[in-house]
Parts: sequence; structure tokens; C-alpha cells
Amino acid sequence: MRTKASPPISHLSGKAALPLIEAYFEFNHLKQLYRQGWLRVGISPERCESVAEHSLGVALLCLFIADSWFPEADASKVVRIALLHDLGEARVGDITPHDGVNPTQKHALERQAVAQILGKLPRGAEYLALWEEYEQGASFEAKLVRQVDRLEMSLQACVYEHQGFGDLSQFFASAEKVMESPQLRAVLTELQALRPPRAAAP
Amino acid sequence: MRTKASPPISHLSGKAALPLIEAYFEFNHLKQLYRQGWLRVGISPERCESVAEHSLGVALLCLFIADSWFPEADASKVVRIALLHDLGEARVGDITPHDGVNPTQKHALERQAVAQILGKLPRGAEYLALWEEYEQGASFEAKLVRQVDRLEMSLQACVYEHQGFGDLSQFFASAEKVMESPQLRAVLTELQALRPPRAAAP
Repeated sequence: MRTKASPPISHLSGKAALPLIEAYFEFNHLKQLYRQGWLRVGISPERCESVAEHSLGVALLCLFIADSWFPEADASKVVRIALLHDLGEARVGDITPHDGVNPTQKHALERQAVAQILGKLPRGAEYLALWEEYEQGASFEAKLVRQVDRLEMSLQACVYEHQGFGDLSQFFASAEKVMESPQLRAVLTELQALRPPRAAAP
Repeated sequence: MRTKASPPISHLSGKAALPLIEAYFEFNHLKQLYRQGWLRVGISPERCESVAEHSLGVALLCLFIADSWFPEADASKVVRIALLHDLGEARVGDITPHDGVNPTQKHALERQAVAQILGKLPRGAEYLALWEEYEQGASFEAKLVRQVDRLEMSLQACVYEHQGFGDLSQFFASAEKVMESPQLRAVLTELQALRPPRAAAP
């Protein structure tokens, strides 16, 4: 798992710190953790986004999308889920489908990580429940964030293609598979049309 | 202004795109924009956080802090303000106090940028109003985010100090100046005690 540095929480080892500071030192590692899928297709570490950068993209898109197109959704909950959805990666790393870890095992590892990171916060149990809701796709809001998570990936892929990083079709195909909402499918279709000509060719 | 690449919005030049896609290509630049204050004190570009990474840190801290300690605050609004607060930098860059731009001019530039980035979104006017509320510190929620913005900076400074980037006292001093809330001052005090011994020395 390629990262910019070892997890900052190690620097608090043996020290008593406020739960908020501990939680920060845990999730700060998301700034150091590369999105491994981009590295795998040859994007250089200097230009590879971090999990934190992706999470911000998902949270902003979720805010705009929930507010604009889904008045039936609880936008505040959508944004909370977006902010929390990748938190387990701060301990477990960014496990991709190419790592040979089965989904049940990945879920168990990440669940334990989220519980450890947030456990000491006053509302920790509530955050863990939201994370679990996301994992299970157990509400309209959770299902929406799961789709926006992939939409953000394809938007970033489109940016990378325009920046000359080659054909990233596989990321669009992976997003296509989960995009159930007609509104979000329409965004993806328009995005396909905005890809640079050579990158879009098979 | 050091960045990883030119603003992605330039790749949509002359093309008609959905407002959501345009907004994404605008704010994606926050992933490419270094927090200039760190570069100025010698942190290498390879290890320097982006504005997007900082914004995610602020949003997560805001969520935890509003939920835990400020039941009188509208936590959903606090998180929205946190997500939007640095958006103008996607066009204007990360102007620091060392750049010789006066605050009125900085505010005008960033306000115009936020209006342009979000103007075409259905709820754009509402987001701009929240951004303005932040700039003016015009509500309890806005004042809280302004403090958490600096708290996140000092937490990141503490991480950098533990990673061997030297004495970053000036960032703690800058945070201290705006930390009005007793609860947040207590976090900063505890954080000071967690700095590595040599870094904390004058």
C-alpha cells in the first residue's frame, strides 16, 4: 500500500490525548494515502490524488446533488455519510478489487477500523451506524452516496484523461455498473461526451 | 502560486457542459492547489497538503465538534460552511497574509470566484450566502468554522512537526489569536503539550 508517510497516529503512541485529537491523527492519514487504483494504471505519485481529496470531492458533489435533484433525501445525512464513508481506509488502506481481499473480509477490517477511530467520540456509535448504512446501501441516502462515490471517480478520470494520462475507460465502465439513478446516469453520459477524443477511443 | 497542474476547467473551454460538471471541474483544482503557507516554511511539494485535503479535515472536525460540544449550533449548516469555505481558492489561489493582497481585495476576488463557480447550480445563491456568512463571521456557525479552520491548521502543523519538518510555532500562534471558544482553546492547549520536544522549544 503506497502512502506518503506512515500513519500519524503512531506519533501519539503511549501518550494520553483528547479523543478529538486522536481521531484527527487517525483520519489525517487519508491525506497521505494514495488512491491506489490511479497508481495501478500508471498515474505518478506526484499527481495521484489522496483518499482525502476524493472524499472532499464526494462530499461536495453529494451536497450539490442532494440539494438540486433529490428533495426527498435528507441532504444533511447524505453529506455526513459522504464525509465518513472512506474513514476505515485510514487504518486498513485503500483495498481495491485487484488486491484479492474478499468483500466480507474487507468489510470486517474496515468496520473494526472505523469503530476504533471513532469509538471514543461522544457520537461515535452514531457515526459507525451511518458508515454501516453506507456499506449495506441500507437507505436512499446511502445508495445515493454509493453512486456519487463512483461518479466522482469518473469525473476525476475525465480530468486525468484531459491531462494526458491515457485511456481510463475502465473507470467509466466501473461507474456505469452502479449508476442506477436516471439523473446520475445522465451526468455520466454527458461526461463520456466530454472526454478527449483519443482517450475515449477503444 | 504553486500548483500540481493548471485549472481543469480550462479543458472544458468552448464546450457546453452540465452546471454540475462545470462546478466539479472548477473545484477539482483544490486537489491541485498546495496550501502555500507550508511551502513557504520549507515543506516539500511531495509532502505539502492540498487545499482539498485541508477542507476535508475542517469538515470532519466541524462535524465531530458541532455534534459533541455545541448542541446549540446547526451542525448541518456548520458542515456546509466548512465544505464551501475555501471554494474561491479554486480560481483565486491560496492567498496568504505574506502575499501583500489587502483583505478587502482578497474578499472581493474570492467572492466573485465563488459566484462564478456556483452561479449555475440551482442552489448557487444560497451557497454564496453561506460563504459570505463565513467571511463576515455573521453567525455562531460561521464563527465556529473560522476557529476550526485554524485548529485544523495547527493539528496539521503538529503532524508535520512529528514528521521532522522543524519548528512550526508560528502556525500555533496564528491559531491562538482567533480561538475564542473555551472548548477549542482547551484542544489547542492540549495539542501544544503533544508537540515533539525540540519542535516546541523557542
